Amino acid sequence: MHSRKKPMSDRFVSRREKLLRVIKQAGVNALLVSGETNVSWLTGFSGDSTWLLLGPKVCVLVSDGRYETQISEECPGLDVVIRKPETKLHEAIAKVVQSAGIGCLGFESHLLTWAMAGDLQSVLPNVEFKPVAGKVEELRAVKDAEEIAKIRTAVDIAIRGFQVIRAMLTSEMTEVSVAHELEQTMRRFGAAGTSFETIVAANDRAALAHYRPGREPIGDCSMLLIDWGANLTGNYKSDLTRVLLFGKVTQKLAKVYQTVLEAQQRAIRSIRPGIKCEEVDKVAREYIRQQGYGRRFGHGLGHGIGLDIHEMPRLAPNSQTVLQPGMVVTVEPGIYLPRWGGVRIEDDILVTRDGAEVLSQSLPKDMESMLVD
Amino acid sequence: MHSRKKPMSDRFVSRREKLLRVIKQAGVNALLVSGETNVSWLTGFSGDSTWLLLGPKVCVLVSDGRYETQISEECPGLDVVIRKPETKLHEAIAKVVQSAGIGCLGFESHLLTWAMAGDLQSVLPNVEFKPVAGKVEELRAVKDAEEIAKIRTAVDIAIRGFQVIRAMLTSEMTEVSVAHELEQTMRRFGAAGTSFETIVAANDRAALAHYRPGREPIGDCSMLLIDWGANLTGNYKSDLTRVLLFGKVTQKLAKVYQTVLEAQQRAIRSIRPGIKCEEVDKVAREYIRQQGYGRRFGHGLGHGIGLDIHEMPRLAPNSQTVLQPGMVVTVEPGIYLPRWGGVRIEDDILVTRDGAEVLSQSLPKDMESMLVD
Repeated sequence: MHSRKKPMSDRFVSRREKLLRVIKQAGVNALLVSGETNVSWLTGFSGDSTWLLLGPKVCVLVSDGRYETQISEECPGLDVVIRKPETKLHEAIAKVVQSAGIGCLGFESHLLTWAMAGDLQSVLPNVEFKPVAGKVEELRAVKDAEEIAKIRTAVDIAIRGFQVIRAMLTSEMTEVSVAHELEQTMRRFGAAGTSFETIVAANDRAALAHYRPGREPIGDCSMLLIDWGANLTGNYKSDLTRVLLFGKVTQKLAKVYQTVLEAQQRAIRSIRPGIKCEEVDKVAREYIRQQGYGRRFGHGLGHGIGLDIHEMPRLAPNSQTVLQPGMVVTVEPGIYLPRWGGVRIEDDILVTRDGAEVLSQSLPKDMESMLVD
Repeated sequence: MHSRKKPMSDRFVSRREKLLRVIKQAGVNALLVSGETNVSWLTGFSGDSTWLLLGPKVCVLVSDGRYETQISEECPGLDVVIRKPETKLHEAIAKVVQSAGIGCLGFESHLLTWAMAGDLQSVLPNVEFKPVAGKVEELRAVKDAEEIAKIRTAVDIAIRGFQVIRAMLTSEMTEVSVAHELEQTMRRFGAAGTSFETIVAANDRAALAHYRPGREPIGDCSMLLIDWGANLTGNYKSDLTRVLLFGKVTQKLAKVYQTVLEAQQRAIRSIRPGIKCEEVDKVAREYIRQQGYGRRFGHGLGHGIGLDIHEMPRLAPNSQTVLQPGMVVTVEPGIYLPRWGGVRIEDDILVTRDGAEVLSQSLPKDMESMLVD
């Protein structure tokens, strides 16, 4: 008998090996990885301000004194350069690039700032710089078994948190207190915190897709939109939305609710390996348009989740990415009517070998289940 | 009698007027403000993915459907372009730049990515692009009376939260539970949450300057470093550090503690309008070096706080910024000994017309006050 679980270090080594193949294809001697989450995914380091230079002949983290011990604990065996407070980051990087004899350096052009690219070029005048955008993110879009297990846990904690909050709701609670209690509850179930600032929006505030909770009592609202997620230590995340309904549901609200739900379910049913993201988006968008709410769905259908709350792929118009097994995406259509309210329904979906699995399946979303006495 | 309080909109208008003078000096027709916090400071808009084009003849936000209602509420009277989901941000910006007849466009080169700068240039081939870095941040570094009042509130809430946590500490609590209780307590006092992920680090973990709290009981630790802050709704922040001491304090710990405290107090006493940031840093750094711990203070002395937790100015070697009245900075020297522990002491300091005011003065930091029975 031997354990099937890969040791930590192996996992990061194999991710770096995947990236090395991409680096080779890109025709550069090394890639300068500056994205914080990308560095974390490739090395296991959980801090910031630390960049990775990776190539066939070089693998070194460039960091500063705050992280010396943490790196030795989180990334055993990895080469590290600790710059002094008086040395600027681009100067420390330049030294490493030069001593590795790199002639053509790839950089993350979608993350590196224009100014930092210029600083690096000025201290490395003989190095050719080549933009290499989104390559680590493309690899990150397809999750391995361990990552999927973590996202599953983050989804389960979010669901349990929501059930507790739903059970403890009173009309005296404010949007803010609901948000805070939900976070505290998810922490009791093992979360490090929320994936993002929880949205709790009553009535007309539900029309604001990225609303910040307020301090007025919920009172006798007719709809309460909650968009929340759990963040685990190590940063894997979930992202869900439900709308609780109070009192007698008006015909208008029922029509909006059922339209969003049907659009979401159609989109989820369309998810399978090989389909383009824009096609999934279109399934929901077309249905909402047919029902007369086309102008009231002003955002993309969904996005990947993982170490970041918004990852690749994006489910949106013009998104040409093809879904693959191991991708995890949100599906979250919405209809927002200014000064009236809004409905968004969001689940987290794993693309499987032959279709899709709704990771948040156990959390009901039919209209009857959303009715609060 | 008339109120001294400026109406919201006036405040943002006067900030934009200050920036317009800078834009003129920079020799550009308009500045494309892409930094989220910069946009917020200039307009009052609290969401993301929204850019501001500002010039003598143009002032327009470019956003998307998610934020249509929110912008009309938060920024009454401001021109807005809402792009459709199928229109990319740089395409929407290009349209606005063209219709405003802008020939020379400044951009935030320290924030805009290399790729986005390229995308914009490709759709605006006849526009001259000019890097204009850090100008909004320079203005933001000097706080007005209302901003100072908010930071004061954030400091007061952080102090009250710490006092509660200190009173409720037990050896059964974990670093994580201390962090979570502290946040929940600060929320009871009116905070939206923490300014950053709270650091609670016992014993040797205190040597890790940016440690994430763990789930082991604190037990009978000898030192417990807590680095925390309150974030208000509207995002003004505080940032403090104290080290609680348990049991008999060893000579080594006492020496480290007193060295950090003396270094911090000397640095604070040096703060006044007209002094360069690097000089303040040097005061603390030199003292720590003289005491034999020069290699154990591996980060800058402090940083500005405001809407962001790390703002201008930086107190660090080579930081040439000159302190001005209205700036608010942390002063936080530390000594970190790997596999033993660390001490950092941090307060928030307002630069006044004739010196400095320690906003967190009421929170004791002498060694005796840190002793927990």
